[in-house]
Amino acid sequence: MPAYKTPLRDIRFLMNEVFDYPAHYKTLSNGESADADTVDMILEGAADFCENVLSPINQSGDEEGCHFENGVVTTPKGFKEAYKQFVEGGWQGLSYPEEFGGQGLPMSLNLVKSEMMGTANWSFTMYPGLSMGCMNTIMQFGTDEQKNTYMPHLTAGTWSGTMCLTEPQCGTDLGQVKSKAEPQADGTYKITGTKIFISAGEHDLTENIIHIVLARLPDAPAGTRGISLFIVPKFLPTADGGVGERNPVSCGSIEHKMGIRASATAVLNFDAATGYLIGEVNKGLHAMFTFMNTARIGTAVQGIAHAELAFQGSLPYAKERMSMRALSGKKDPEQVADAIIHHADVRRMLLTQKAIAEGGRAMIYHAAQLADKMADALSQGDQAKFEEYDDKLGFYTPILKGFLTELGLEAANHGMQVFGGHGYIKEHGMEQIARDARIATLYEGTTGVQALDLIGRKVLLSSKGKVVRDYTAEILRFCAQHATNKYMRRFAWDLTKICAQWNALTVRIMLAARKDRDIVSSASVDFLMFSGYAMMAFYWAQQAAVASEKLASGTGAETPEFYKAKIKVADFYFERLLPRSQGHAESMVNPSRTMMSLDAEHFSFDY
Amino acid sequence: MPAYKTPLRDIRFLMNEVFDYPAHYKTLSNGESADADTVDMILEGAADFCENVLSPINQSGDEEGCHFENGVVTTPKGFKEAYKQFVEGGWQGLSYPEEFGGQGLPMSLNLVKSEMMGTANWSFTMYPGLSMGCMNTIMQFGTDEQKNTYMPHLTAGTWSGTMCLTEPQCGTDLGQVKSKAEPQADGTYKITGTKIFISAGEHDLTENIIHIVLARLPDAPAGTRGISLFIVPKFLPTADGGVGERNPVSCGSIEHKMGIRASATAVLNFDAATGYLIGEVNKGLHAMFTFMNTARIGTAVQGIAHAELAFQGSLPYAKERMSMRALSGKKDPEQVADAIIHHADVRRMLLTQKAIAEGGRAMIYHAAQLADKMADALSQGDQAKFEEYDDKLGFYTPILKGFLTELGLEAANHGMQVFGGHGYIKEHGMEQIARDARIATLYEGTTGVQALDLIGRKVLLSSKGKVVRDYTAEILRFCAQHATNKYMRRFAWDLTKICAQWNALTVRIMLAARKDRDIVSSASVDFLMFSGYAMMAFYWAQQAAVASEKLASGTGAETPEFYKAKIKVADFYFERLLPRSQGHAESMVNPSRTMMSLDAEHFSFDY
Repeated sequence: MPAYKTPLRDIRFLMNEVFDYPAHYKTLSNGESADADTVDMILEGAADFCENVLSPINQSGDEEGCHFENGVVTTPKGFKEAYKQFVEGGWQGLSYPEEFGGQGLPMSLNLVKSEMMGTANWSFTMYPGLSMGCMNTIMQFGTDEQKNTYMPHLTAGTWSGTMCLTEPQCGTDLGQVKSKAEPQADGTYKITGTKIFISAGEHDLTENIIHIVLARLPDAPAGTRGISLFIVPKFLPTADGGVGERNPVSCGSIEHKMGIRASATAVLNFDAATGYLIGEVNKGLHAMFTFMNTARIGTAVQGIAHAELAFQGSLPYAKERMSMRALSGKKDPEQVADAIIHHADVRRMLLTQKAIAEGGRAMIYHAAQLADKMADALSQGDQAKFEEYDDKLGFYTPILKGFLTELGLEAANHGMQVFGGHGYIKEHGMEQIARDARIATLYEGTTGVQALDLIGRKVLLSSKGKVVRDYTAEILRFCAQHATNKYMRRFAWDLTKICAQWNALTVRIMLAARKDRDIVSSASVDFLMFSGYAMMAFYWAQQAAVASEKLASGTGAETPEFYKAKIKVADFYFERLLPRSQGHAESMVNPSRTMMSLDAEHFSFDY
Repeated sequence: MPAYKTPLRDIRFLMNEVFDYPAHYKTLSNGESADADTVDMILEGAADFCENVLSPINQSGDEEGCHFENGVVTTPKGFKEAYKQFVEGGWQGLSYPEEFGGQGLPMSLNLVKSEMMGTANWSFTMYPGLSMGCMNTIMQFGTDEQKNTYMPHLTAGTWSGTMCLTEPQCGTDLGQVKSKAEPQADGTYKITGTKIFISAGEHDLTENIIHIVLARLPDAPAGTRGISLFIVPKFLPTADGGVGERNPVSCGSIEHKMGIRASATAVLNFDAATGYLIGEVNKGLHAMFTFMNTARIGTAVQGIAHAELAFQGSLPYAKERMSMRALSGKKDPEQVADAIIHHADVRRMLLTQKAIAEGGRAMIYHAAQLADKMADALSQGDQAKFEEYDDKLGFYTPILKGFLTELGLEAANHGMQVFGGHGYIKEHGMEQIARDARIATLYEGTTGVQALDLIGRKVLLSSKGKVVRDYTAEILRFCAQHATNKYMRRFAWDLTKICAQWNALTVRIMLAARKDRDIVSSASVDFLMFSGYAMMAFYWAQQAAVASEKLASGTGAETPEFYKAKIKVADFYFERLLPRSQGHAESMVNPSRTMMSLDAEHFSFDY
């Protein structure tokens, strides 16, 4: 397992040179506190914690996994100590209000911190990650009393939280939720039902676990309009804010998973557990969707995390491992063979990993600014601005989550491939990265769910293609600005073409969908991937634009080689990865007939 | 884990209707014995063994893995008993000479048997699979004495064999082999060295293990021209053909792998072990390459095996699992939701699995006929014919191995994806398929090695593009034959286009390579994948052609629905998978400069 090294130079290049975070923070009402010194201190503190505390227990955590005995879950060796340091460092409260003990910093900083932590140890990061889902729900929909009861403990990290949505019969289709909430005379509810796949649902890291649970009132309408949201603590809070009586919610088992084995995934049985309504009755699903964007961007981070870690593993191996001679002649004449980094095909894999990690990071760091602006508008009560940014982010989210997690898995597999047979052996850790990465396209909405959200809801239903028109207009403005720069001309040209194609495809599917309703689904993943490749191209062009300016002006925080490398990787992206969009373009426009006309029983005649 | 069901209808469709195996067998000198009844008996006997003996221990074998203690390897529960039945059934000797106790049947039948066994339990199949590598080497290069000593036991399966090539410092680049062979006065050699990644290198299934070992004589030239081949038995054979003294070859450990965990992968330490030269001194690597094609086609089978098994898992799940409503209206109105097979995107995944499994099977069953012809020419001493078929197979091999194992992994991942989050949980077995499938692109030459073999050796060096011209000419003849058939017209048109493109790309890279030698590597995997998509298209068109003939004539062994489904899946392949070739085409023609000009130390500025 590669020891994680925080890519601070790349992070700072994006924050300071590409997206001008310092200026961005000045526009936020809570941005003052995020001055250059504070940001630096956080980046370096987080890097230190990730490299020295989280990374060393990543492989051992996978080997050992979580333990389950009689309802009690024990995390692997070292996790409790690491979590204690996480709490002591105040890391959970980074972007939560100062009135509850947080530091009130913009949430983009929290996302950067999560990226670092997730790359160092994704399993560990699941525990505080789920807490944030719970905290966001309470902050948005909780009463003052609820906030005062839970937020200080959650912000400190001494309590943690979960999101209890999935049941055995349903995950995506939450309208099928069966868990029941019986109203009690005292205004509380008795919650009964079984929830599965509950990440951080039971563990030994915190004093208490606060479950946010989807359940139905007895008289609730069927389907999605009859679901309410409840706070169900593992231990009921006492009047003075302490940990009280045990609530009858118990962990029935934990799952044996392909990867992220140090993250406990619990089956939770609620047996008339005391719950407190949060938000409005029957509007629980709507409330859940409020945080879907941020939660899904948090999962999109997993794509770049595993791409980054796989790259950190395969790059040094490619420099060390000697095999055969380069086609263009000996590179290491004094050695028995050349290092494999001299083979073009090995470079193709390394550059693909790098293009995904750094291109994806740029996509996420820009989305993080939108999330900051959205949160700021909300805190300022500016509903119009909130909706504007929410819409923008709503378009980005399925692309980031769907596309980056698919590419993250690809990059993780390249990491194994660079190692050859050694990549398949546990001790090198490369196969763990691929196993850990595999969950990312499944949870928080599968790739198919993201794809349908993108084309069905965001592109066709709510905007009739306007989101694509607006976004491509932004790209075309960028192209116009850079059309005369010799480094940028080719990027501008390719971007212009792909923008035209993106709009044309959108219109074509929109028209086809009038008669062929299934095309929205049959085209969806191709449309998602096409959109992802187009969008990532824009972010590589933006990085190249900054790099070429810095090279031309001779200024900039980095050595010329850093900027030159950025331009070369942008070239690589446009030459080798962007062309994949054409296969998706050609595939998606076909009518759904071929797929839909085969009877379910004719998929196989053998079984 | 899905219980394996042998796809006999599809296998028989290919053998009897598409490739006319009965007529093919009549052309072979050993084909007489492969009459319709014998073939049927073998197919059904193998199916029974696979479904009832091998499939039930596939998941438990993965869970338990192999055990290692003090140099002794124990296979998981049930493997010894299953292997005993394998021996009793005479399965190992199917295609080996009757004089050594085999059944002397064409090797294509053996390949079909291996496909079934491998799909039911790939880990188990590794043990007899490696024996075949050893047996082929002895049959081709062994003296009569060596054949008489080893072949009867190996053919029976009471002894097994291995291929000991890889060492810690080298896998692909076997010129770096360091193991030493010291000549002894009695004509034997003392073999000393460490071999790693030796599949079936140590286990408890057989009385003896016969290692084929690459090593160097003291005066051997450096590099690939100084490697000789030795037979190194675990127990030295006695004069009467029994098991004698233990040879000092010991198992130092077994690997902890991502998948195929019931297959023991050994580190073997040879400590002046007695070895017997096989074949000519210093020509060991050449001998190895003789069997590379058949060994690699054996690994290509893994692509379709995992695609098939993943499909067998996800198809019933897609029919059962209810989630959301189909976009074109309710399909299961009496249910709370529609089965997910009614969602186009789920069908896209299922059809992709099916297209890969059945399209790949067709590719392999045709290659198996070439292998039969090659073996037949060899047995008849017809060197010219042998070389003709060997050349043909040499072109197919890297495409089959490289392309089908990549697509097999994709299909396995779709299997998990159809299951959503449940795909990530061990008990359902879908994640095991993905882990098992992952090795296939790594061993027997990585995808990159296959790609370089294809474009570098087979296409450019030895034939200057002729292999592509010849193969596409065959496709074009097929297109001409079917251009007037209404079902086939669109396939013929797409195939014609892709043939032209395939030749154009070949010429373009050939010309570019004169000045840009690295382009052969930078374009290689794209060229391999393009070739694979083009080739699989031809095999889908062939299946559609047979199906459309049967539908038109109202004859054929199958129901009309079977033939209609074949045409629909061919349609799907041409609409949804073949377009991916365009991304590869666009990518491969770029000069290697962008990839090669980045200094190794500038791949990262952070680590």
